[in-house]
Amino acid sequence: MKIITAQAPVNIAVIKYWGKKDENLIIPLNDSISGTLSMEHLCATTSIAFSNEFDSNRMWLNNVEVKIEDNKRLVRCIENVRKLAESTIGWPSDHHIRICSKNNFPTAAGLASSAAGYACLCYALCKLFEINDPKIISSLARLGSGSACRSIYGGIVRWIAGYDHQTSIARQVITENEWPEIRILVCVVNDHRKDTSSTFGMQLSCQTSPLIKYRAEHVVLEHCDQITKAIMERNFEKFAEITMKDSNQFHAICQDTYPPIRYMNDISWSIVNLIHFINNLFGYNVACYTFDAGPNACIYCLDNNVPILIKSIRRMFQKSDGTELAINGITYQTDQINIDQKLSDYIDIRKRMGDDLKYIISTRLGSGPKILSNQYDSNCLLSANGLPKN
Amino acid sequence: MKIITAQAPVNIAVIKYWGKKDENLIIPLNDSISGTLSMEHLCATTSIAFSNEFDSNRMWLNNVEVKIEDNKRLVRCIENVRKLAESTIGWPSDHHIRICSKNNFPTAAGLASSAAGYACLCYALCKLFEINDPKIISSLARLGSGSACRSIYGGIVRWIAGYDHQTSIARQVITENEWPEIRILVCVVNDHRKDTSSTFGMQLSCQTSPLIKYRAEHVVLEHCDQITKAIMERNFEKFAEITMKDSNQFHAICQDTYPPIRYMNDISWSIVNLIHFINNLFGYNVACYTFDAGPNACIYCLDNNVPILIKSIRRMFQKSDGTELAINGITYQTDQINIDQKLSDYIDIRKRMGDDLKYIISTRLGSGPKILSNQYDSNCLLSANGLPKN
Repeated sequence: MKIITAQAPVNIAVIKYWGKKDENLIIPLNDSISGTLSMEHLCATTSIAFSNEFDSNRMWLNNVEVKIEDNKRLVRCIENVRKLAESTIGWPSDHHIRICSKNNFPTAAGLASSAAGYACLCYALCKLFEINDPKIISSLARLGSGSACRSIYGGIVRWIAGYDHQTSIARQVITENEWPEIRILVCVVNDHRKDTSSTFGMQLSCQTSPLIKYRAEHVVLEHCDQITKAIMERNFEKFAEITMKDSNQFHAICQDTYPPIRYMNDISWSIVNLIHFINNLFGYNVACYTFDAGPNACIYCLDNNVPILIKSIRRMFQKSDGTELAINGITYQTDQINIDQKLSDYIDIRKRMGDDLKYIISTRLGSGPKILSNQYDSNCLLSANGLPKN
Repeated sequence: MKIITAQAPVNIAVIKYWGKKDENLIIPLNDSISGTLSMEHLCATTSIAFSNEFDSNRMWLNNVEVKIEDNKRLVRCIENVRKLAESTIGWPSDHHIRICSKNNFPTAAGLASSAAGYACLCYALCKLFEINDPKIISSLARLGSGSACRSIYGGIVRWIAGYDHQTSIARQVITENEWPEIRILVCVVNDHRKDTSSTFGMQLSCQTSPLIKYRAEHVVLEHCDQITKAIMERNFEKFAEITMKDSNQFHAICQDTYPPIRYMNDISWSIVNLIHFINNLFGYNVACYTFDAGPNACIYCLDNNVPILIKSIRRMFQKSDGTELAINGITYQTDQINIDQKLSDYIDIRKRMGDDLKYIISTRLGSGPKILSNQYDSNCLLSANGLPKN
């Protein structure tokens, strides 16, 4: 009988992954780069128990049982670990696993939970079976959900597209401590529309967008090289520029898809325009935005600029009940912050009164996955009988 | 003393013009194709008087005097005609012109009025000076506003990019009578935002979009060839597909621009999605959308499908005062039209109650510019003293 509980982080890409060269192995068309967010504020937690007392493999996700055999990607991750375990502690056929997983953020937030979820699952499984090579863990996580391979490392991470299962893995660009001033504000949009799933969307883009191949072959590598250089030099100005350009081009590819895919709505665009207005007003890149397959804006900035951004966003997006937009995570004092008259005028004629944002998650870069415990303790999501605690 | 009054049509591109090879001569990056709309519903009207009794050239546009010398493009059109007139009736230095121009649609409609306006001005000027070659008139109109060169012909028109002033001209693909079933519904969006001007926008795209060159060099010619073939075969299915793809790609280029340019808002996208839903439901392309440098949707369809489209759009976009959305132009009986249950359900959960559309202009393809009169009559916008009538 073995038991392990692990935690893994969310990541937010600054150079976007969109499109696969190999649908089965999840080999992407191009490299991508992301920041790993601190697990203090956003993370997945997974407990896995392994015993000959269990009669079958079972899994629960956010308190709902998931039929493992119905999920091809889940099966593939588990089967790969079973094979790898042959050269470590082994997986006797009379032993089964129980998996219990949850996110500390509402799925309704529209944040990609699959990256943190699969990173956590594969990390915990590998650690359980004493498979410790992060390259192997990263490639396994990729089989679950492409961008999960990046959540295996902290700081800023690059997923090398590669050409097969072994070569398509993430590697760390810098640790979270090497650029400690970086902050991320996730603006969670109040939108009930169901977005096109990224798996389906990127397939459709590959099949129908005349521009996607040009992006993958001619633009993204240049973006990756430029942003890596900017990261190495802690050049936020350039980092921000490339991040915005790459996000915009990813959404351009979505629009070039047929039928067109659209993730950014009027609320998303009002944040885009606000950021460009502020950058223009200040004469340098105070912040940059990036959008994944949904309307939420992720803003990267340096810590000294968080207060003016929060104050501006709160003033732009007012709550109908008169309260201020909630900030979850790292809090800042904004009372002393003065909004420039031009910025104030800009916001006043564009402000939105309709509860367009739910809240802002204010966070920083963080580490890769970690083990919380190796026993049935308060961290563990499973009881000793192999069933979820609640 | 000579006097002429002419009318010229609006055109709506199905293959988009975006970006210039030569800013000065307005030579576009790529060919473009448009439908010329009937002047019954949308047109520019211009009267030009020519006499030695006038002490200077003067112009009025929609009842406001325009300083000709402040408008480089206007000066260029007039100077070119002056030179061409040397080989026709001549333009003695003691003769001056008076121009009075107006549109029969509100500028607030957000429809590109410059194409009709410059087409009308150049057509009237040329006719006044007995310059009759439509190739010359088309290239002159292009110097005023690129897409104006297409408004010199009726039906469906292709602007050949060319490489210099003489070769960059429009030519007719088919006349309006060769595909009489074509209808155009212009959905005028209620939006007070000031859009990025297309002149500035396309410059910025050329300077910053990594994708625009690929579009211009590799995609647009293919779109032009495919849609020309579809037009020749009266194949609306294919015509609609290419029209939507080209509009989407044009807006993708706008998003790939830095800072990104965005013309389509949530209202525009709700029309995009409605059209795709209807096409999907019916199993063929009932209609297609195309968007210029603004949020208004232009829908191309065949006449038999106008009623279902109008009924669907009216149900989707409700007026807050309970009245039905106004249709200007060709009217249709829609009482007998049944909306399929699936379409009805689709609309009901997405319908917008906020007066998002102002009205719909319902029109067809029409002819090129025409002379209304050669004398001071009721059509003439000028009095005999060379001043506007009102």
